[in-house]
Amino acid sequence: MWSDRRLLELLSIEHPIIQAPMAGAMDARLVIAACEGGALGSLPCAMLSIETMRSEVATIRQHTDRPFNLNFFCHEPLAADPGAMAAWRTALAPYYKEAGLDPAMPLAAASRAPFSAEACALVEEIRPKAVSFHFGLPDETLLARIKAVGSVVMGCATNVAEARWLEERGADIIIAQGAEAGGHRGMFLSHDPAGQVGTFALVPQVVDAVRAPVVAAGGIADGRGIAAAFALGASGVQVGTAYLKTPEAAIGAPFRAALSEARDDSTRITNVMTGKPARGILNRIMREKGPMVRDLPAFPHPSAVVAPLRAHFEGRGSGDFTPLWAGQAAALGTGMPAADFTRMLASSALHRLSQMCP
Amino acid sequence: MWSDRRLLELLSIEHPIIQAPMAGAMDARLVIAACEGGALGSLPCAMLSIETMRSEVATIRQHTDRPFNLNFFCHEPLAADPGAMAAWRTALAPYYKEAGLDPAMPLAAASRAPFSAEACALVEEIRPKAVSFHFGLPDETLLARIKAVGSVVMGCATNVAEARWLEERGADIIIAQGAEAGGHRGMFLSHDPAGQVGTFALVPQVVDAVRAPVVAAGGIADGRGIAAAFALGASGVQVGTAYLKTPEAAIGAPFRAALSEARDDSTRITNVMTGKPARGILNRIMREKGPMVRDLPAFPHPSAVVAPLRAHFEGRGSGDFTPLWAGQAAALGTGMPAADFTRMLASSALHRLSQMCP
Repeated sequence: MWSDRRLLELLSIEHPIIQAPMAGAMDARLVIAACEGGALGSLPCAMLSIETMRSEVATIRQHTDRPFNLNFFCHEPLAADPGAMAAWRTALAPYYKEAGLDPAMPLAAASRAPFSAEACALVEEIRPKAVSFHFGLPDETLLARIKAVGSVVMGCATNVAEARWLEERGADIIIAQGAEAGGHRGMFLSHDPAGQVGTFALVPQVVDAVRAPVVAAGGIADGRGIAAAFALGASGVQVGTAYLKTPEAAIGAPFRAALSEARDDSTRITNVMTGKPARGILNRIMREKGPMVRDLPAFPHPSAVVAPLRAHFEGRGSGDFTPLWAGQAAALGTGMPAADFTRMLASSALHRLSQMCP
Repeated sequence: MWSDRRLLELLSIEHPIIQAPMAGAMDARLVIAACEGGALGSLPCAMLSIETMRSEVATIRQHTDRPFNLNFFCHEPLAADPGAMAAWRTALAPYYKEAGLDPAMPLAAASRAPFSAEACALVEEIRPKAVSFHFGLPDETLLARIKAVGSVVMGCATNVAEARWLEERGADIIIAQGAEAGGHRGMFLSHDPAGQVGTFALVPQVVDAVRAPVVAAGGIADGRGIAAAFALGASGVQVGTAYLKTPEAAIGAPFRAALSEARDDSTRITNVMTGKPARGILNRIMREKGPMVRDLPAFPHPSAVVAPLRAHFEGRGSGDFTPLWAGQAAALGTGMPAADFTRMLASSALHRLSQMCP
């Protein structure tokens, strides 16, 4: 049925769809549902302890025997510059006061850790079908250990140079993340978010540049998008925001409300939440402090300063300080349960392809 | 052969392809070649006098009996603020000195005029198959006169709200211009270029919002892109940058060289050339002064200050001060003659569609 079956064969999945890992917005429940629907479910591990990763994977395996993906970040861990942290605390102090919080209160450390030897040992123990990385790849030694247990390695590229870099270092599948995508830009060789390439232009240029199968990500939320990604040469798609609208996503009421009201032009790329550029629905902190700020502390430390505000305002039903990560097709999701949604995506894509036969 | 024939029928064209009007980079020669290849050729009129429009159309009609499009701008004409003009002259003065030019030299007025009663009278005289507008639409009276002579009216939208606005006011075809597109953003209700929507996310949302046929623009340079645009629900495509690579485009050697070296991430959206945001290949003035500057004189007046620098540096083979308008798929063009390129686009799109049949 699918004209390009490379992704299906590499990942042993039914439909050429990857449910995007969305750290902080989902857990095993969405992975299970996406897998049961025939997609590759992805567990975002960047904010999880090793113990939680292990228990989440146990939950997944209790409920499905289908293949899944573990996703990790590969950012360079940088200490927070005290001066930059103090400046960011000062910048947000008026909001602390508005919330009745002490602007000098002790802060919990930000919780995004890069892939580590410890995480690698867990991958060796779990032997997931696939492991995907954001912000580059782990070092050679760790990558070799993952490949040695047979996991398919997927890397995320936001331009042709990054795609080539990933393939040269051993990525089996290239995720081409267009500028429309929600959440953190996977950029690691490029540093200017204004130079990010749209999915429509990015996918064919990446397809021409690498031999590995390419997965299109960014702006894909229905069967039309999947059909279009195939037309551009992709072997599959990664869908994120549309899965946030499913009941299985672990997001709060303010985020759900923002998603249901989102329009095509509701998002911006911002660094105010974590220090790295990410696309989300424009909210108060992005509007008043960003969306892009210079001289922030290194990723992920700015999030430690935002966290108490987020907790306070979410408690009052507001997403004003919540990272509302979403892509430019947020308005297209359906809210169906994730397994049904996955099947619907696949069947509507095939229907769309058949409609277009010359 | 084409599953959606609405554009073909409305415009009496052979292939669902519009050669994008590119003011300052082309003339009748490219229009003729695109028309002869089976596309809708478009003459950009924004920088032409009424006399030149008339003679260009005469040239087109001498060489082809196929339908063509006249394109106009609909920006609100604003006087140049003397303070802002002086500040911009001061900002560029070091370049004048480097070029041996007097920073206080008299400047010719910038040459982009909005659609006028005089231009409308010419449209009534010429009766082109189509008239397209950038930056909104002309006022009701002028629009009614165009429709009265039977010309198909096309408007450019960069988001859903603009698409609805255009359709409500009488546009027969909506050009959905994604963020990937080269040249001036057609935005007229939105004002933040950082909110521009990528083609992949924009097209299906515009298709869902309007009844008129939608033409996808931005990042489309080969048959894969045309097939993908159809998958997203478009009835056709507008192709710009790829036509700049044809021998019929009227661009200088520095621009041709920049196009041939362009990569996926070579462009930025800038306002330094004209005061309105437009996408072009990153060059010296964009890098050193922009790409986005606050408090510039109103469109198109900044271009009057850049013009002497452009002329000087182009004379020395450099595009450092040239508007190198191009989209994010600039690397995909072929350089074939425009008529052959048009036929190749259509046949490769149909081939791509047939390859994907489930």
